[in-house]
Amino acid sequence: MPRLVLIRHGQSSWNLENRFTGWWDVDVTEKGAAEARAAGELMAAKGLDFDMTFTSLQTRAIKTLNLALEAMGRLWLPTEKDWRLNERHYGGLTGLDKAETAAKHGDEQVHIWRRSFDIPPPVLEAGSAYDLSQDRRYAGIAIPQTESLKDTIDRVLPYYEERIAPMLRDGQRVLISAHGNSLRALVKHLSNIPDDAITGLEIPTGQPIVYELDDSLAATDRYYLSER
Amino acid sequence: MPRLVLIRHGQSSWNLENRFTGWWDVDVTEKGAAEARAAGELMAAKGLDFDMTFTSLQTRAIKTLNLALEAMGRLWLPTEKDWRLNERHYGGLTGLDKAETAAKHGDEQVHIWRRSFDIPPPVLEAGSAYDLSQDRRYAGIAIPQTESLKDTIDRVLPYYEERIAPMLRDGQRVLISAHGNSLRALVKHLSNIPDDAITGLEIPTGQPIVYELDDSLAATDRYYLSER
Repeated sequence: MPRLVLIRHGQSSWNLENRFTGWWDVDVTEKGAAEARAAGELMAAKGLDFDMTFTSLQTRAIKTLNLALEAMGRLWLPTEKDWRLNERHYGGLTGLDKAETAAKHGDEQVHIWRRSFDIPPPVLEAGSAYDLSQDRRYAGIAIPQTESLKDTIDRVLPYYEERIAPMLRDGQRVLISAHGNSLRALVKHLSNIPDDAITGLEIPTGQPIVYELDDSLAATDRYYLSER
Repeated sequence: MPRLVLIRHGQSSWNLENRFTGWWDVDVTEKGAAEARAAGELMAAKGLDFDMTFTSLQTRAIKTLNLALEAMGRLWLPTEKDWRLNERHYGGLTGLDKAETAAKHGDEQVHIWRRSFDIPPPVLEAGSAYDLSQDRRYAGIAIPQTESLKDTIDRVLPYYEERIAPMLRDGQRVLISAHGNSLRALVKHLSNIPDDAITGLEIPTGQPIVYELDDSLAATDRYYLSER
């Protein structure tokens, strides 16, 4: 039966500072790196193994994958990196911490942006310090100016269908290292979670989430590896 | 004009112990990791950049690549990993240090194996602690029992022609992180070094070697990046 494991990157420096990060490329902290290694050790100890790995174009997810694979003795596995697994783009909220966001937009509005399924934050202003239009890793792709969770899902799922699902159907064991919202997109799809519930589903950092799938790639089981 | 950069992995634990390593999968030392980071910092400082990266299936080369790319802010670049970039397989010498090898085979014979172009060491004995036939990373490939430098070249160059040369012709800037002998294969080819000279050519660890190529991929210049 096909098996898919999802892992959210270990704690990043902006997770720690409680800043909206989105597409900004911050590193994992020492704690985040330790979470990634521990995830790899746990997967090895539980006998999980993989044939193919996927990650985003963002350092925190790539490093989490590399550290976990190293801990498993599996650095040699192939990895495909794609922007469609990137974190949700937080638009004009990028870089703001909790206090700054509340001061600028009010708690109520921030709550709406955090929890609504399809209302995106304001767009990132031109000339912002967080503008990525000159970053060559995104050359040739239409960088979002902002995204709702729905917008994120609308680019994650086509990628899943195009690149990941065929490998799962082919019997390959797949590991994805990505971000809170790109993983929400996959969890929503695989576990059929309604629009109004998915925004409240928290994906913890560095915790392997195991999906057992049937031949049609419908989930027969979902669990945190640390709980089995 | 196409540009290709070669880097031999940073010091490994068996480089340090002066053991024949070959396909055995030893890690880089702390010094080796520092060499890899320094190589990345040097490449960034000199303004080198890449579109595609290649490495072997061996941890020391993969980690060297990852550490160098991280130091360049380029972890997001695509990487292709292939066994044909692995180190020369040292057969029955695998795991032996200098003193053990001399005691077992005599200095003169060891010198012949080290320096001859086409005489392979004895094959790895069945049941050896260094037998890789159960290592799933090599599933489906005919693991050599031993290799001369010529044998190594005979698998590196077809891979270069098949996967790397087309990307260079396409204008992509390529970085290869590999091993002393798989890189000798490339240097011999690109710099037209005769059979009897290539075995004496030392490739230092962690030093980016830059090839400037013309449109037919003939080398117009080769230099250590640290010297320019």
